[in-house]
Formats: sequence, structure tokens, C-alpha cells
Amino acid sequence: MNDSINIAQEALAAANNANFVANNVWMLVATVLVFLMHLGFATLEAGFVQKKNVVNILFKNIMIVCIGLISYYVIGFNLMYPGVDGGFFAFAGFGLSVPEGAAGLIDYADGGYSYYTDFIFQGMFAATCCTIVSGAVAERIKLIPFLIFCLFFVTLLYPITGYWKWGAGWLDAKGFYDFAGSTIVHSVGGWGALAGAILLGPRLGKYTKKGLKPIPGHSMPLATVGVFLLWFGWFGFNGGSVLSADPGLVSLVFVTTSLAAAAGCIGAFLVSRFIYKSYDLSMALNGILGGLVGITASADGVSVVSALIIGFVAGVLIPLSVNFFDKIKIDDPVGATSVHLVCGIWGTIAVALFGNYDEGVGGLTIQLLGIVAVGVFTFLFAFIVFYVLKITIGIRVDAEEETKGLDIGEHQAVAYA
Amino acid sequence: MNDSINIAQEALAAANNANFVANNVWMLVATVLVFLMHLGFATLEAGFVQKKNVVNILFKNIMIVCIGLISYYVIGFNLMYPGVDGGFFAFAGFGLSVPEGAAGLIDYADGGYSYYTDFIFQGMFAATCCTIVSGAVAERIKLIPFLIFCLFFVTLLYPITGYWKWGAGWLDAKGFYDFAGSTIVHSVGGWGALAGAILLGPRLGKYTKKGLKPIPGHSMPLATVGVFLLWFGWFGFNGGSVLSADPGLVSLVFVTTSLAAAAGCIGAFLVSRFIYKSYDLSMALNGILGGLVGITASADGVSVVSALIIGFVAGVLIPLSVNFFDKIKIDDPVGATSVHLVCGIWGTIAVALFGNYDEGVGGLTIQLLGIVAVGVFTFLFAFIVFYVLKITIGIRVDAEEETKGLDIGEHQAVAYA
Amino acid sequence: MNDSINIAQEALAAANNANFVANNVWMLVATVLVFLMHLGFATLEAGFVQKKNVVNILFKNIMIVCIGLISYYVIGFNLMYPGVDGGFFAFAGFGLSVPEGAAGLIDYADGGYSYYTDFIFQGMFAATCCTIVSGAVAERIKLIPFLIFCLFFVTLLYPITGYWKWGAGWLDAKGFYDFAGSTIVHSVGGWGALAGAILLGPRLGKYTKKGLKPIPGHSMPLATVGVFLLWFGWFGFNGGSVLSADPGLVSLVFVTTSLAAAAGCIGAFLVSRFIYKSYDLSMALNGILGGLVGITASADGVSVVSALIIGFVAGVLIPLSVNFFDKIKIDDPVGATSVHLVCGIWGTIAVALFGNYDEGVGGLTIQLLGIVAVGVFTFLFAFIVFYVLKITIGIRVDAEEETKGLDIGEHQAVAYA
Repeated sequence: MNDSINIAQEALAAANNANFVANNVWMLVATVLVFLMHLGFATLEAGFVQKKNVVNILFKNIMIVCIGLISYYVIGFNLMYPGVDGGFFAFAGFGLSVPEGAAGLIDYADGGYSYYTDFIFQGMFAATCCTIVSGAVAERIKLIPFLIFCLFFVTLLYPITGYWKWGAGWLDAKGFYDFAGSTIVHSVGGWGALAGAILLGPRLGKYTKKGLKPIPGHSMPLATVGVFLLWFGWFGFNGGSVLSADPGLVSLVFVTTSLAAAAGCIGAFLVSRFIYKSYDLSMALNGILGGLVGITASADGVSVVSALIIGFVAGVLIPLSVNFFDKIKIDDPVGATSVHLVCGIWGTIAVALFGNYDEGVGGLTIQLLGIVAVGVFTFLFAFIVFYVLKITIGIRVDAEEETKGLDIGEHQAVAYA
Repeated sequence: MNDSINIAQEALAAANNANFVANNVWMLVATVLVFLMHLGFATLEAGFVQKKNVVNILFKNIMIVCIGLISYYVIGFNLMYPGVDGGFFAFAGFGLSVPEGAAGLIDYADGGYSYYTDFIFQGMFAATCCTIVSGAVAERIKLIPFLIFCLFFVTLLYPITGYWKWGAGWLDAKGFYDFAGSTIVHSVGGWGALAGAILLGPRLGKYTKKGLKPIPGHSMPLATVGVFLLWFGWFGFNGGSVLSADPGLVSLVFVTTSLAAAAGCIGAFLVSRFIYKSYDLSMALNGILGGLVGITASADGVSVVSALIIGFVAGVLIPLSVNFFDKIKIDDPVGATSVHLVCGIWGTIAVALFGNYDEGVGGLTIQLLGIVAVGVFTFLFAFIVFYVLKITIGIRVDAEEETKGLDIGEHQAVAYA
Repeated sequence: MNDSINIAQEALAAANNANFVANNVWMLVATVLVFLMHLGFATLEAGFVQKKNVVNILFKNIMIVCIGLISYYVIGFNLMYPGVDGGFFAFAGFGLSVPEGAAGLIDYADGGYSYYTDFIFQGMFAATCCTIVSGAVAERIKLIPFLIFCLFFVTLLYPITGYWKWGAGWLDAKGFYDFAGSTIVHSVGGWGALAGAILLGPRLGKYTKKGLKPIPGHSMPLATVGVFLLWFGWFGFNGGSVLSADPGLVSLVFVTTSLAAAAGCIGAFLVSRFIYKSYDLSMALNGILGGLVGITASADGVSVVSALIIGFVAGVLIPLSVNFFDKIKIDDPVGATSVHLVCGIWGTIAVALFGNYDEGVGGLTIQLLGIVAVGVFTFLFAFIVFYVLKITIGIRVDAEEETKGLDIGEHQAVAYA
């Protein structure tokens, strides 16, 4: 009998460890996938800008990841998840020895994962919101003011609104639901993008007296690579947001995420074709992204058909929204506001319309309240930071530099020698 | 004693769950890898076509994935695996609530995985067969007829021949073996490619009175990116086809797959060098792909040395086959028929020559029967669909559009502004 | 009671299997990630060379992977890990049947993984050292001598020095520590690169009487894609070097690796900005790589703050080192010696300064001894091989070919038609 209980206890410990390990492996894989979204954004934005601004947009995108990760370690993570270690700074401390506890188990519902895993997964998310801004303000913003903006945005704004929901803050307590961040990540980035685009004004020559003059991106292959890599990364973004490797839930998320992306493409395609009479590649690409942003709030709680509807509507919104922003002369070179803000809002509302969640979670009122609260706070924050930068060091390059391109102006370099 | 049995039962449940989770994680990782093959195909084909047709080929490739995933949900999956839920449509239904059972465990040999995982893994495969066609018919096919063809091909043809083998149909019953789809995926795509290329005829100016005029691809870096991403994805394509995370089997598949790819490169290199007197990058790239296609039918049942031989022969076949198709004036801009059809057939035969399978499985007669049966059925299906499209709405752009390029003709856009 | 012990034993077996499977899945994922580093190198190097040498550098990079994998199967793996099967060749034999034992469990500390997994993970590493050389000797080396060099380097040199440490050889016995290969992989590649660059001499027109004439790379987007893919792959390179899926350790490695990369970028950025007065994208990119190389020796045993310091110093070293090599007229088109050799040495020293390892492991003396021993042996080996090739078949293309480009000269092709 002693044998029996010893073996049973050994087996239980081994089984618990195996669950911990398998779970943690999934979260690390998700981390790696989300990391690659930064390359997705970099290539998408590089593809959508003019040849003369490519070095600049690449430079900004690599700086954002690096600044984002470091600042999220120093402040962001502890600000966003206050319970982590009780302090405001660096969950694993500022010392030179590896703290014992920090690698230990976080006991979530299924399997758990280590603190370091938690940090690096969340840290990969954090920088994303700035990357979204980067596209909308491209081809005319000065480098240093933009990096200063990012530092504030990723260090303070993102963790604060993130805390409201994912840090178990007031929005969470009221039943607001946002699975992987249609609002908390994407519309946050979108509001920042909108504030920047408004304060900067449109690129020279975009809106003329004779009407809109499209400024096509310099490389459709790069943009397409970007969209595929973003979709690829979204399997980690949404799939990892289950916060466990629960097979049923993660695979449901894979299916809803993919089919919403596919339906988004079809939606954007049909509207482009039948309203704007064109098989427009950039609309189809942004349709995929719109579908992905749209499903992000509810990927773990909708049926496949709901996912198709959510994605399709998001895709339909893309060309309409791009057109709308052009009408009101807000110039966004890559369509970031349409993709991340408009579809982020739509996705957050879709939770109320299609979500299968518990009573009191994800109702229409609280979803709208969440959208407005995060929106107002984020827009004001971004607007104020950009505005202060504008009246102090300036945020826009001069007309000559804009015409010659920021690659020469800011970097004394060209993308293609 | 009660304690002991309770702990033992708890441990057993936890251990079974851990096996389920680990297995499912692997299948999801494999899914993500196979997804990225679509980017691999998109960049490979974009790199191998002329600059003036790049937007068009990218557009087709993103539409194929999206159409493929949706149609595979609506019909394909249930057609191919009839046991899934007993119906012909949408395994998880058309309703708005998430069905309880659909996320549950499928009990395969080791560990199992969820239904949703099964669907999304198979769904990523499905669209591949159309992507293969896409390359061969590039630079001259009309957009809409091509998309209509894809809809039929992925919705009906692929699941039917797929069912013959993987749905436990008649070929499977007779002992036909095709591990991850040298025939069921690659030669199916290859036959469709051949039918399309024949009915379309060659590109203008390719075969002149003075002989063959090569039309080089516009970007070797894009093509190279494509081949590396396809190899990358093949770890999921072949590795996931084990349908479990069985360590011995999956890692054997990794080794045979990689070494066949490497040997394919060497084979194509040597033939290019010693017969055609040239260090030809596109041949070496297609040699890698040939090796990968060749090993796909038997990656789980051959030795490392066999994998090297299979891959090497596939690589040798590539330049010979490309040359042969050019001799008979079948114009295939990316070499898809050589890679997927010729090496797909070779790989299926190689099962009989090198495979270590059970008695009655993968004999030469049944392998040849499978090749012929799938070939005849697929070629006829593809030929008929293309032919009906040809005599109704037409499948080929006019000479003026072909000369100016399909990017301007079909999309009013250019790839590089 | 029998019931109880039976269930307990069944549970234990299932739990052990689950640990084995989860562990093996992680090692396979790491393998796939490391594989993609080859695409990272290929695109990085292609981006940093001139347009006229792109086909050549891509050709070399795909050949290296293929040659490397095959030769590592035939000799390298057994040479490096002598215990594997007791012989010097092919751990899984040269026969046509799949050996039973080869897929079995290797019983490392946690969970274990299969022999085939071990081989393919290590095999992906092996070719890396040649890829590093490839960048430094680009734009002027003859194709065939370079491939011959690689064959020797990957088949003999890399396994021998690798054996000294990872095969439990004499350096390991003395307490030398190099977690994932700052010395064993990166500086080995760097010494080979240095030997090649010295023997070849600089590219025509680089160092003129009027001073240095920079030869900018032809595509910054390609180079940026390369750096992101290398970072992506490094999660497998360092994360997989834990040789288990231990959650605490792998996630610590993820965090230290990422934050060192980020700090490397910031370090290179600041030096470029304040010393060289330029926001230099290629320096920032190489700063990321420098940070990654620097942390590679100690990623499993330093605190987050130590990782930031190690990465930052590596980043600072990059522009200084690039400048230094230009001062002494050693021409390295991609900065491989600065990234892999200089930061590889720094990372190996950093083990002694920041590492939390057992007494007698990673002390400054033994670290320096390891650096020198590996350095002298590798440099001499590479120098001799290159020298013999130089005085026999020649290693440098003639001036006319160099001016016209190696794409035309060696391949009769162009990268962009």
C-alpha cells in the first residue's frame, strides 16, 4: 500500500509537471508568434509608404519594439498587473542575480506558466499599440518626437487602460469583455493614430483642389508579406490570450480567428469590386487585418458562423472607412485607423451581439462604455502628448524634407542603393 | 487505500490531460506552420513572375487562402472525412452558439486533439492545391475564372480524392500509402496546373521560331524567401501529418524531410552544373521543393539514407522536367508541374521502393493505381472546369493586356510605385 | 490494492510519456525556429550587398544549409557528440530500414527527447557558422572555393571545437561555460569570417586614397527582414539550448535574450547618434544582432538587468568595431566580424562577470582560455583552408567579374529582371 501511494503521488507530481510544461510551451510559442507581428507591421508599413521613406519607417519599427520591451520591464508590466509582485517596477528586480521565485509557477486555471513567460508574452503585446500609430503618422513625422511619444504611450497609457480590463480593474469589474484586445490593444493604437494624424495634417499633395490624389505604396510584395506575417502572429496573439493551452478553447480561437480573417478579405473584396469597381489588393489585405482585429475581442466565445459574420462586416467597413477618412481629409498612409480603430470598435460591439459569455459579461451597455472610456482617455492622452511635442520641439518635418523624403532627411540614407 | 486509489485516479486523469494538451499543442503549431506555406507560395510565385504581374499573383494567392478556408468549412471537411459528424456540411454547424461537443477530444492513437484542431489543420492543407495551380497559369489567366476554378477545385475535387485515401476510402482500403500528400495534395495541384497550362497555352513570346526565350522572374530574393518559408512550413505539413506529437515519429519525419530537401538541392545543382553548365539559383530552389514533395509520401517510414536518395532523385528530376515541359511547349512560369506533379509521382512510387510499412501497404501496384486514378480523375475534373470556363467567359486575357501586364489590366495598379 | 497500484503505475507511465512528449515538442519547435535563421541570414546578407551580387549570396546561403545538414549527418554529429552511438558516422546508419533505437528517448534532466530530435536540432546549428563567414567574404569570393571551405568548416572544424565544450571535452571539463554558443557557434563563424576577409582583401574601391568609400547595401527592407527573422529564430537557438522545456529556465532565456537584443539596439543607436551623428539603420540592426550574440553564452544564468547591460555593451561595440575594422582595412560587407566575433568574445567574457553559475564554472580565466583556444584553432584552420584554396584554384574573382557583379559572372543571371 505504501508503494501504491508513493507511486500515485509520484505520478500526480509528474502529471502536474507535464501539464505545466505543455501549457508553458504553448505560451512561449504564442510569444514567438506575437513577436513576429512586429516584422509584419514593419513590412506592411514599409510596403505602403513611398520609396523615399522606407528606411525611416523601418527604423521606427525596430526602435519601437526595443523601447517597448525595456520600458515594459521597467514600468509597464507592474503597472498593468498590480498583483505581480506588489511593486511598481521590474517584476524580476534590478539586481544581478536571478531571483528564485520569478521563474516559478503562476497558477492559472489550466496548467499555469512561469512569471517570466507571463512577462514576455505581455511585453510582446505592449509595443504593438505604438506600431499601429507608426503607420498612420508615416512619411511626415519627425523621428525623435515620435520616439518620445512612443515612450509615453507604451510606458504609461497602454498599461493604464490595459489595467482597467486585464489587470482586473474597474472595466473588468463591470463586466466589460475584450478577449485579446480589440479595444485594449487595437483601438488604443487606433486612437493614438487618429490623434497623431489630426495634429500632423495630411501629407503634401494628398488632398488637392482637384480632389484626392492617391499616393500608392512602393512595394505590394512587402505589404503582402506583412499581412501574412500578421495573420501568422495572430495565432499567438489570440491563441495565447486563452492564457492556457486548453485544447478546445485554443483550437476554437484558431478557427474563429482564421475564418474571420478570410471573411474580412471577402467583405473588402466585394465592396471594392461592386462599389469602387476595382480588384484592389491593398483593400483585400486590409480586409484580412480588419477581420482579425474584429474577431479579437470575442474569438474565444463565438461560433464559426458568428466569426464569419464579424469578419465579413469588418472587411466591409474597411473600404468605407478608408474612404470616409479621406473625405474628412485625415491622411493615414497605411489605413491604420480603419483597420485598428474602426474594426476594433466593431469587434468590441460584436461581443455583445454574438458572444456566448456568462450573464453580466459583455452586454451592449458595458461594451459601449468600455469603448468610450478607453477611447476618450487614450485620444486625450495621445493628443496632449503629441500637442506638447508639437508646440515645443515640433512634430512635422519641413516641406523640403518631406518632398525629398525622410530617408535622406533623417538618416542620410536610401532604402535601395 | 482509498487515498491511494483517489490519488492514482487523479494522477491518471491529469496525465491523460497532459498528453492530450501536449499533442494538441503540436497539432496547432503544425497548423501555424502550414499556414505560412501560403506566404511561401505567394512570395515564390511573385518572385518568379514578371514585375508587371506581381499584384495579380499576390491577389490570387490571398483570395485562394480565404476562399479555401471558408469553403472547406462549409463543405470540404465534411465531404473528405465523412465520419466527422455524419452530415455533409459545416462540422460545427451554422448556428450562433458554440457547440459543446465540437471542441472535444478526437481519440487518435496518441494523445488526441480537438475537432476544431483537426478542422483547422486540414483546412490549411486544402487551399494548397489551388495555390499550386496558381503558379502554372500565372501571367495570362483572367482573375475571375481562376477564382471560380479554385472554388470548384478546393470545394469538390480536393475533398473527393482526399477522401479516397485519408477519409478511409477505397484507395486506403486497397493499401495505397501517401503519408502527407505527395499524391493527395501535390500531384493533385500539379494535375490541375497541367490542365490549366495546356488550355491556356504559353505566354506570348516564350516559344518563338528561333526557339525558347526564357522569361526570368522579377525578384530572386522574393523567390528565395518563398522556398525557405515553404521548407519551414513543411515541418508542419509533414510533421503534423503524424497526427500526434509522438516524439520518435515526428522527429524521424523532421530528419527525413530536411535531408530530402537538402539532397534535392544538391541533385538539381549537379544536373544544372554538369548538363546545363550553369549555377542556376531557380533550379536549386526548385530542387529543394522537389525534394520536399518527393519525401512527403513516405517521410514517416524511410531511413535517412532513403530520404537522401528520394530527395536527390527528385532534385535531379527538376531541371530535366522543366526542360521537358519546355520542349513540348507547356509553359509553366514557376515550374509547378515539375515540382508538384513530377516529384509528387516520384514520391508516391518511392513509397514502394523505400518504405518500411506493413505487409500489403504501399506496394508498387497499388501505388501506381493510386497515381493513375487520382491523376485521371483530377486532370479530367480540372480540364472540364477550365474548358467550360474557356468556352463561356474565357480564361485568357487578351494580348494587349498580357503585354501591358495583368496588374494594370486587372487591378489598375502597379506592384512597385 | 492491486487496482490502486495498477492505476498508479499506468498514471506514472502516462505522466512520464506526457513529459517526454511536451519536452520533445519544444525541442522540435526550437529546431524549426533555428531553421528559419538561415532565411534570416540569407535576407540580411542579400540586403547588405550590392544588387549585382544578390543571386550569388542567395545561392551560397541555400547551398550552405543543404551541404551542412548532409555533412552533419554523415560525420559532424557523431564527431561532436562521441557518445551518440559509439561510431564516427551517421548516428542512424546508412541502411534503408528505419533503425528501432534511433527514435528512442534520450534521458536528459527533464523529460528527454528523441535521438532524431537531438540530431536535427544540432544540425540546424551546424551550418550557421558557415553562413556567418558567407557575409564577410561576400561580393568577391569565387563560388566553388567557398563551398569547399564550407564543407571543411562544417564537417570538421565546427564539430571539433563544439566537442571541446558541448561534447563534454576538455574545455567543458575545465569549467568553460558557453550556454548556446557565443564562442562555439558565433565566434567560430567570426574567426572564419576574419580569416577569409584578410586573405581575400577588401572589395575594389572600398578603401581609396581619399579614404573610405562606403558601399551601401541594396535593400534595407531585406536586411530588416533578416534581423527580425534572426531574432525570431534566436528564441529557438537560445530557448532550445536549455535542452528541455523547463518552464522557468526557458522563459528566463526568452526574457534575457529579448531584452539583450533590445538593449543592443539602443546601445548601437546611441553611439551612432552621439559619436557618428547619424540615425543609422544598419547599425541599429547590427546592434540587435550584437545583443543577441552577446547574451547567447549566458542567457540561462543572468538577471534581466545583467542581460540589459550585456546587450547594451554589445550594441555599443558594434559601431566602434565596424569602424575599427574599416580603419585596419579589413572589409566585411555585412559586419559579420563585428557582430559574431567581437560580440561573441564579449558574451563569453560576460559569463564571468554576470553569470550565476556553480563554483568553478565560467570563471574569467577559463572563459579567456576558451576564447583563445577556440580562436587560435579556428582561425588557423580557416586560414589554412582558405590559403590552400587561394594558392591552388584561387579564391577571388577577377576585377572585371567583381565590377560586373558575381550574379552575371558566376550565374549568368540577375536578381531583378
